[in-house]
Amino acid sequence: MASYLLKNGRVVTADSDSVCDVLIEGETIVSLGRNLAADGAEVIDCTGKIIVPGGIDPHVHLDMPFMGTFSSDTHETGTRAALHGGTTTVIDFVLQKQGHSLRQALTEWQGRATGTAVGDYSFHMAVTDFNPSTKEEIKDMVAEGITSFKTFMAYKGALMIDDAQMVGLMQEVRKHGGLVTAHATNGDMIDTLIAQHRAQGKMTPLYHYLSQPEVTESEASGRFADIANYTGVNAYIVHLTCEGALNQVRRATERNQRVFVETCIQYLVLDASLYQDEANGAKYVMSPPLREKKDQETLWAGINQGLVQVVGTDHCPFMWEQKLMGKDDFSKIPNGHPAIEHRMELLFSEGVAKGRISLQKFVEVTSTNAAKIFGMFPRKGTISIGADADLVIIDPTKKHTISAATHHMNVDHSAYEGWELTGKIDTVLLRGQVAIDGGQAKVGRGYGQFIKRGKTAF
Amino acid sequence: MASYLLKNGRVVTADSDSVCDVLIEGETIVSLGRNLAADGAEVIDCTGKIIVPGGIDPHVHLDMPFMGTFSSDTHETGTRAALHGGTTTVIDFVLQKQGHSLRQALTEWQGRATGTAVGDYSFHMAVTDFNPSTKEEIKDMVAEGITSFKTFMAYKGALMIDDAQMVGLMQEVRKHGGLVTAHATNGDMIDTLIAQHRAQGKMTPLYHYLSQPEVTESEASGRFADIANYTGVNAYIVHLTCEGALNQVRRATERNQRVFVETCIQYLVLDASLYQDEANGAKYVMSPPLREKKDQETLWAGINQGLVQVVGTDHCPFMWEQKLMGKDDFSKIPNGHPAIEHRMELLFSEGVAKGRISLQKFVEVTSTNAAKIFGMFPRKGTISIGADADLVIIDPTKKHTISAATHHMNVDHSAYEGWELTGKIDTVLLRGQVAIDGGQAKVGRGYGQFIKRGKTAF
Amino acid sequence: MASYLLKNGRVVTADSDSVCDVLIEGETIVSLGRNLAADGAEVIDCTGKIIVPGGIDPHVHLDMPFMGTFSSDTHETGTRAALHGGTTTVIDFVLQKQGHSLRQALTEWQGRATGTAVGDYSFHMAVTDFNPSTKEEIKDMVAEGITSFKTFMAYKGALMIDDAQMVGLMQEVRKHGGLVTAHATNGDMIDTLIAQHRAQGKMTPLYHYLSQPEVTESEASGRFADIANYTGVNAYIVHLTCEGALNQVRRATERNQRVFVETCIQYLVLDASLYQDEANGAKYVMSPPLREKKDQETLWAGINQGLVQVVGTDHCPFMWEQKLMGKDDFSKIPNGHPAIEHRMELLFSEGVAKGRISLQKFVEVTSTNAAKIFGMFPRKGTISIGADADLVIIDPTKKHTISAATHHMNVDHSAYEGWELTGKIDTVLLRGQVAIDGGQAKVGRGYGQFIKRGKTAF
Amino acid sequence: MASYLLKNGRVVTADSDSVCDVLIEGETIVSLGRNLAADGAEVIDCTGKIIVPGGIDPHVHLDMPFMGTFSSDTHETGTRAALHGGTTTVIDFVLQKQGHSLRQALTEWQGRATGTAVGDYSFHMAVTDFNPSTKEEIKDMVAEGITSFKTFMAYKGALMIDDAQMVGLMQEVRKHGGLVTAHATNGDMIDTLIAQHRAQGKMTPLYHYLSQPEVTESEASGRFADIANYTGVNAYIVHLTCEGALNQVRRATERNQRVFVETCIQYLVLDASLYQDEANGAKYVMSPPLREKKDQETLWAGINQGLVQVVGTDHCPFMWEQKLMGKDDFSKIPNGHPAIEHRMELLFSEGVAKGRISLQKFVEVTSTNAAKIFGMFPRKGTISIGADADLVIIDPTKKHTISAATHHMNVDHSAYEGWELTGKIDTVLLRGQVAIDGGQAKVGRGYGQFIKRGKTAF
Repeated sequence: MASYLLKNGRVVTADSDSVCDVLIEGETIVSLGRNLAADGAEVIDCTGKIIVPGGIDPHVHLDMPFMGTFSSDTHETGTRAALHGGTTTVIDFVLQKQGHSLRQALTEWQGRATGTAVGDYSFHMAVTDFNPSTKEEIKDMVAEGITSFKTFMAYKGALMIDDAQMVGLMQEVRKHGGLVTAHATNGDMIDTLIAQHRAQGKMTPLYHYLSQPEVTESEASGRFADIANYTGVNAYIVHLTCEGALNQVRRATERNQRVFVETCIQYLVLDASLYQDEANGAKYVMSPPLREKKDQETLWAGINQGLVQVVGTDHCPFMWEQKLMGKDDFSKIPNGHPAIEHRMELLFSEGVAKGRISLQKFVEVTSTNAAKIFGMFPRKGTISIGADADLVIIDPTKKHTISAATHHMNVDHSAYEGWELTGKIDTVLLRGQVAIDGGQAKVGRGYGQFIKRGKTAF
Repeated sequence: MASYLLKNGRVVTADSDSVCDVLIEGETIVSLGRNLAADGAEVIDCTGKIIVPGGIDPHVHLDMPFMGTFSSDTHETGTRAALHGGTTTVIDFVLQKQGHSLRQALTEWQGRATGTAVGDYSFHMAVTDFNPSTKEEIKDMVAEGITSFKTFMAYKGALMIDDAQMVGLMQEVRKHGGLVTAHATNGDMIDTLIAQHRAQGKMTPLYHYLSQPEVTESEASGRFADIANYTGVNAYIVHLTCEGALNQVRRATERNQRVFVETCIQYLVLDASLYQDEANGAKYVMSPPLREKKDQETLWAGINQGLVQVVGTDHCPFMWEQKLMGKDDFSKIPNGHPAIEHRMELLFSEGVAKGRISLQKFVEVTSTNAAKIFGMFPRKGTISIGADADLVIIDPTKKHTISAATHHMNVDHSAYEGWELTGKIDTVLLRGQVAIDGGQAKVGRGYGQFIKRGKTAF
Repeated sequence: MASYLLKNGRVVTADSDSVCDVLIEGETIVSLGRNLAADGAEVIDCTGKIIVPGGIDPHVHLDMPFMGTFSSDTHETGTRAALHGGTTTVIDFVLQKQGHSLRQALTEWQGRATGTAVGDYSFHMAVTDFNPSTKEEIKDMVAEGITSFKTFMAYKGALMIDDAQMVGLMQEVRKHGGLVTAHATNGDMIDTLIAQHRAQGKMTPLYHYLSQPEVTESEASGRFADIANYTGVNAYIVHLTCEGALNQVRRATERNQRVFVETCIQYLVLDASLYQDEANGAKYVMSPPLREKKDQETLWAGINQGLVQVVGTDHCPFMWEQKLMGKDDFSKIPNGHPAIEHRMELLFSEGVAKGRISLQKFVEVTSTNAAKIFGMFPRKGTISIGADADLVIIDPTKKHTISAATHHMNVDHSAYEGWELTGKIDTVLLRGQVAIDGGQAKVGRGYGQFIKRGKTAF
Repeated sequence: MASYLLKNGRVVTADSDSVCDVLIEGETIVSLGRNLAADGAEVIDCTGKIIVPGGIDPHVHLDMPFMGTFSSDTHETGTRAALHGGTTTVIDFVLQKQGHSLRQALTEWQGRATGTAVGDYSFHMAVTDFNPSTKEEIKDMVAEGITSFKTFMAYKGALMIDDAQMVGLMQEVRKHGGLVTAHATNGDMIDTLIAQHRAQGKMTPLYHYLSQPEVTESEASGRFADIANYTGVNAYIVHLTCEGALNQVRRATERNQRVFVETCIQYLVLDASLYQDEANGAKYVMSPPLREKKDQETLWAGINQGLVQVVGTDHCPFMWEQKLMGKDDFSKIPNGHPAIEHRMELLFSEGVAKGRISLQKFVEVTSTNAAKIFGMFPRKGTISIGADADLVIIDPTKKHTISAATHHMNVDHSAYEGWELTGKIDTVLLRGQVAIDGGQAKVGRGYGQFIKRGKTAF
């Protein structure tokens, strides 16, 4: 049985910080201590390095069918890129097709992911058509370890469910102890604004942004929280971007409700001024769009207030050629932003190195909280005895530069091209194996396992 | 060097949960692992037990001079009782005397605590007279490891500072990276209501409660948050009891502010209906007073929302004879409630066993968060390599009953007389020594050490 | 030309209160003064009486097609009953039929109202299908003097428009200076709850109430305000009933928005405990349903805060036989509550006589504010020179009792059966004619005129 | 008996708007009508003019002792200048001297005002020392017709009362049906900031502004509302300037409280950028200081929302020579801003002519609401039969320019020097006499009467 001894690293979790050794046997951590004996284990010297739990990115879209094409990272390339960036587990979205069953969608996604993923993965089930028959499947999904159910309040006719379905879904999910998550934007408002802009010949990426003003997100976030409060279900808002939406969550606390909040790395570090760049604007076409400086302030504060628990990516890459489908019409640009590989280094550099958040918060929002919320704790999300040996060794002062030329995601552009970051990931272990070392992948296609998840325990 | 090996316990921290062994050498934890070798260490079998970090109670008043008498637990009896209840570290309040220096007060308190405390302790400095000379002492206190400065917005003429002093103190504390805490109630309003009730011959304990209505606390909490926001200092509200006050904190989040909140165990489990009992009402005379059921709901929710980070006690015991000083006049009843010994077991039983909070939240609010907020992390507040071996071994299903006849606090009554709890503490270790075992103290007077504290890192 | 001289009444408007005479010539008020000469005018002695402006009820449904039948008051009987109760002008709702034009609906309503109404009336246009062709009709409606456009956020498939249509409608209405009003409840949620209750065999009127919990109204009120704020249109919420909904309006003020609010008389004086009466529950089946005591407090406070500007009725009577359509299924009970006749006397008795509101507020919320908001001011809504001589003479201390046996509405039951009120209307004038005197109608079918309305001026 | 007939004016009140004649006999309005006969009355042709009720400025400081000097307008010059600007009634502040009785202060103020005022006036009583003896005087003041009691939450040692006194005062005033008003700023915070700026040698007028940041006002406004809510007294905030403070009032509405709000004309039209002008900055030294553009937006919105009921002036003029007392130290600049003469024309020009508020709102906030709130309605604040003939005839399109060279206030500078306004007051009548005509005063010293006030009726 392969085994490793990580020596003298600064082991940091959400609630600890100590220089010690980490002994791994097989897939799990078996000892933490000082001066642990190697006992035949391969030694990795971590002096001067920080060791954190493997990252969990609970919001990725791999190999996702979309507009007659697919997002450009497969489960293989996507999870491999994730590993390069210290993310050892991702949760991908299975999308029910309206008129079809959840099971059909799951089977399809399993077909693409099983045996191909390099890193560990799990699935959310996106319920796009809640009806008596879907209702029956909820408990089956929970039994499969798929305990979180995604809803879209936008994309009418494709993914959106209405509030009637929302009530029913929440009630059923609650009965089985699951979690309901939402893409909380008002699809009807957005569709109208898109149509108006197009009718006026306003076709540049800037109008993608202007078609999704803050109100479309704050309104839907409040509505989602209201319905969740009424039904009593555990609720989670994905990719929250703005002050208006977070204020809805803050106000929901006044009625003793807890709503979990995820933001994504891009909303913390990029802003809407980028839409002025017509040539490159397509890079930033994602939904919700980038927001204002004031919203970045809100999100950083929200993390420190404990009201934003998770930083994900909504990774959904498209090749530039795919993006060009919308060169004359922003509404035809495939929505999505590749970030699966850079989430942790960006947050380390912009957050920890710049003093905005503590190392503990860094671990919380990149790993531990997602593990707790999504029912993978304590197997994932921490460095403790018996936990999966998913570990990220970071050189905290090393500088490096992001480029599409060197990144590992299957996409030919980067929103962060040329950004110099402080703090570089040296080595990544996944379930006891060195997965990444010195920029090279050491585990291959199919190494990644499906992670069956339990209930929220936060 | 004494050493222990705790075998097969369920080790639970704020971010981990694993069955393993804990090896202690001297004062610190040196290994966590499975099947650790004893190597001469004394073995404690923890099978079926939960091991959590030693509790930290950041709000106690030991041997406190008051109304010509003293609170009835000394640093010796108080910290010993704390240990019995799993609290290995307390933070006591040094009270500056108006017209005198901080140093004088510190010297006085050191005189009482040094060499007498059984458990570890630190000090907050209560600044009751902020002036140019006090201002100069702030940095000295920080250098002494006293990084938190308590303010009273009530008790005019004795402890209260006005908003002018508050601004000045906050600015100075901020400069030195410290934390300002507040007893946030409007003293002027309360003094008026007390005087009115007395003038009307309303002398029973019920009028203690009615002299401190919710608005006196919500108003002051909002004011404290406002001034803290303006000065930019780290702020912490002690013993917050009610919805109105927590809503002020919630609304402060909308301007991107973070205000730390402590409640106390009694506010979670006791309510104001107890003031109807005229004979025993004095037991519940504390400030702020007990509140309503709706406030209990708010506080439990606040814990789960991450907006209430700490559960302390405001332990301040007085013998029944002392309480009787106010038998004819509620305003003469020494304010205070003994709870230092029961905080953790009460919260375990009412919180964890009843499913209101998770084990991780239990650890967070009894230990980890206080360690982070008050600059003792990662030495205290967690179970990790190199941390102090402050450990509490809990039998999670054992039932036991609270009684003044059997408790260890130096006080002859209990608000919890006859309460049956689920979950009993078997053994407590403090810095590597078995401090409590089978209900017996195993360390003596003077074992407790002063803990020099650093800055907030949360 | 007929003319009247009202002598020595206490003339009360929203901003005046004086004992004087009122001289009327033809349809208008020509003089106010002391000791005015009769000059051939018929004198009405008003000594000891209060004279207020004729009431405006901006929310009535007369002769409304519904579930294969019609609401039981025609424009004739309804406006006559309104006159008996001091309401000289009503605004009725024209309901566009989905798939048809606004004009078709208007023509249909004009067909029923023209030449039949006894009191003055105007129309709101309820837009139930907003599309490119409806869009073109908005300006036409404004030109017709129909400047307010009603939307339903409930009753999917019949009356409801979605948020996409809402955006478009608001933009178009704003362009022409009109007002958008909303039945602001979440139809999707309600439909789900109704279906669930029916599936569970919960068929009594109580479940009508439980299918429309407060959140269904507060959510939709917030959403409506959000969209209105985004589009910049003048917005008005009809029949607001509850604290949650009014709080949404209050919070909207924080972004400098003004949202007009109408409540109805029944929400101020009746509460949900009435649904416990299974036999009579159908009387109270209206949407939104009656609420709690705390909501009544909110609404009275809202009036005094200036945040609730209008008290209407949502008058929509059905005979008991019609109500019995739903005797085995609450969802089949025609929704509606007859109150057109009692609004002013109820509010006078419960509001003014009981000291909850001033006489000036009484006039504001029964008449002046509606005139300003709905573009009939200063012709209607006040007592001033040149204004329509719409006047109500009230005997402020006279007691009387409500009964279906004596009321003038064409409905055979009353929610207020047996209520004794303080303050009785003696005489009502409409455009210079005595319309009601001593309980007798003095003007006939067809006396009422359509009132062409202008823009909001508040 | 002198009498006037105003012909063909557009008579505008808060709830009416009609072209008609106004007949005055003696001091009161006796008829409103069309084609009224002159009957020996002097005719004033008002064709093309707007006639509004005489303005009420409820916030002026005349002949006020301050820093060893007096505000430069006496009751004579101040009320005369007020009349020039259409303000026919002012409410001046009697300031209790700490340690002395209310009666002593009243006698002193009566000594200065009686027989000298040109326009009508009343008094607020500023309670600066609430004690058992002051408490006894409250009912006496109410009996004198002084029903509003001003408090200062700033100016410690001179005018400020603490929260203990506030509670007691509010309880007593409530008992007698009066109103408590507040200068709601946190004096302790301000004093600290002033001292800090001075210690740092920051002596320019800009530091006056920076010593009173928004939080000092929002905090105190919230505190005042809290205490008022607890005591149940009618409450009114004077000279509210900013978003933070108005939001406190908005939030107070959520607990069903009503707090009246006054802003002053300068806060609507001037902003803090003016403090950059070091040479003229003293002009703008008033408390609270001018605020930001966003606050102006809030105040205009607040007026239209009905949450700001009154626009006053806080008129308190000082000659430039007096202002120069602080040329080297902003804290020595006498606080105050002369505006008594320009309030109505400024608001007409900036508010009505620019389309921000309706003519009805203009009348409400300049006259009617103050009359209702301060117990002078319906004698003052409206144009109705029996009301005082206090009338302002405005030429709505005439342009004119403000200058210290031409204004009538006894002060040698103006914050509005050179401003061109639209809408000029031609003629002013006070109690039936032409007081101002063609820029000339027609009534003399002593014409003004003390107005005994009753209770709030709003």
